[in-house]
Amino acid sequence: MASTRTGRPRASGSSPTGQGTRADVLAAAAELFCTRGYASASTHAIAEAAGIRQASLYHHFARKQDVLLALLLGTVQPSLDVAAELLAADEDAAARLWALCVADVRLLAAGPHNVGALYLLPEVSDEHFLPFRERRSELETTYRTLVTACAVPPDRIEIGSTLVLALVENVILQRKRGVEPTDLLAAEIADAALRVLDLAPEVRARAAVDGARLVTSLR
Amino acid sequence: MASTRTGRPRASGSSPTGQGTRADVLAAAAELFCTRGYASASTHAIAEAAGIRQASLYHHFARKQDVLLALLLGTVQPSLDVAAELLAADEDAAARLWALCVADVRLLAAGPHNVGALYLLPEVSDEHFLPFRERRSELETTYRTLVTACAVPPDRIEIGSTLVLALVENVILQRKRGVEPTDLLAAEIADAALRVLDLAPEVRARAAVDGARLVTSLR
Repeated sequence: MASTRTGRPRASGSSPTGQGTRADVLAAAAELFCTRGYASASTHAIAEAAGIRQASLYHHFARKQDVLLALLLGTVQPSLDVAAELLAADEDAAARLWALCVADVRLLAAGPHNVGALYLLPEVSDEHFLPFRERRSELETTYRTLVTACAVPPDRIEIGSTLVLALVENVILQRKRGVEPTDLLAAEIADAALRVLDLAPEVRARAAVDGARLVTSLR
Repeated sequence: MASTRTGRPRASGSSPTGQGTRADVLAAAAELFCTRGYASASTHAIAEAAGIRQASLYHHFARKQDVLLALLLGTVQPSLDVAAELLAADEDAAARLWALCVADVRLLAAGPHNVGALYLLPEVSDEHFLPFRERRSELETTYRTLVTACAVPPDRIEIGSTLVLALVENVILQRKRGVEPTDLLAAEIADAALRVLDLAPEVRARAAVDGARLVTSLR
């Protein structure tokens, strides 16, 4: 919608995403980074794919790194918002963890491009991407908090949290192989997470029911 | 060792890996691809890092894609060899699956660079890397065969195999975050794989003991 656009006028046509220039740049960059590679995609090529002038891109992003950072943050921030909501919720911890797994899988599965795969770019080790690594680390802390609240034995919390997140993030590798993750897969991953933590079958069964209700109630 | 070297003479010094020019090229390429990125590493830079002339690199690899293909195959072929040995072994299926998980985690954890992360390069979608994708697919089939032999219900085989491999391959994402996977982590992942398949506690306990013995007996 034209009213949400900011910055310089477009080189041609209307916003491909219908969400303004910034969103157009991110959509074009996601496609180029995921199909041709980060190093190979110039800001010129990104601007062209977004249907804007390069100067207009620079109005929103000072350099290509900032575009990648924004894409990476977009793969974590919504999960952090969900996590904050779940940490404050009144349900059983296992149900909340189940819901977080489902929401996180859905986020990594969303969008036409596998943006999560950009985590593995060597470039992401750079200082510039510290804000992303910090957010990612916050999300890990949330998983650990919920795993702890599931009454997992203290010496199993660290490894349990690692393995739960492993199951969730594997969606990135799945998509890489051409598997389109479904809501069913998200639920299967959440079920598996609770099995990895060795929770009792009746706790897991209840968590899946309550967790599914929690997911639908998320803002 | 000089006797194992083939091809043109070295530009300078002796083989950095001590295993000949081909191994030197692969070691140098693994470092450059993983630290600077595949697109950014030229065959000239790889040859220089390997201490050889570019012409000597071309004696072993016609193009950069072939170097990447060799690195990718190196992350799968040893696991396929182990898998073939385990498929023929006389142990309980759960023990053999446990051993395959451990061996596969160790392979992905081996070497100074996280070569498994190269799976996610957009370039790997190219036709040229079909031999790698075929090998990877063979490995998936082995996992499925062993999961089936664990007497997992038929409708749980596909998803169970996917989740087991998810746990194993997550080592790639772990290393990316700077975690150095240990043998203990490998065993934890193998234990978790059997929990994901919902095998009975006594089956899992026995499989971990027999699986550990199998791992040490592997060629």
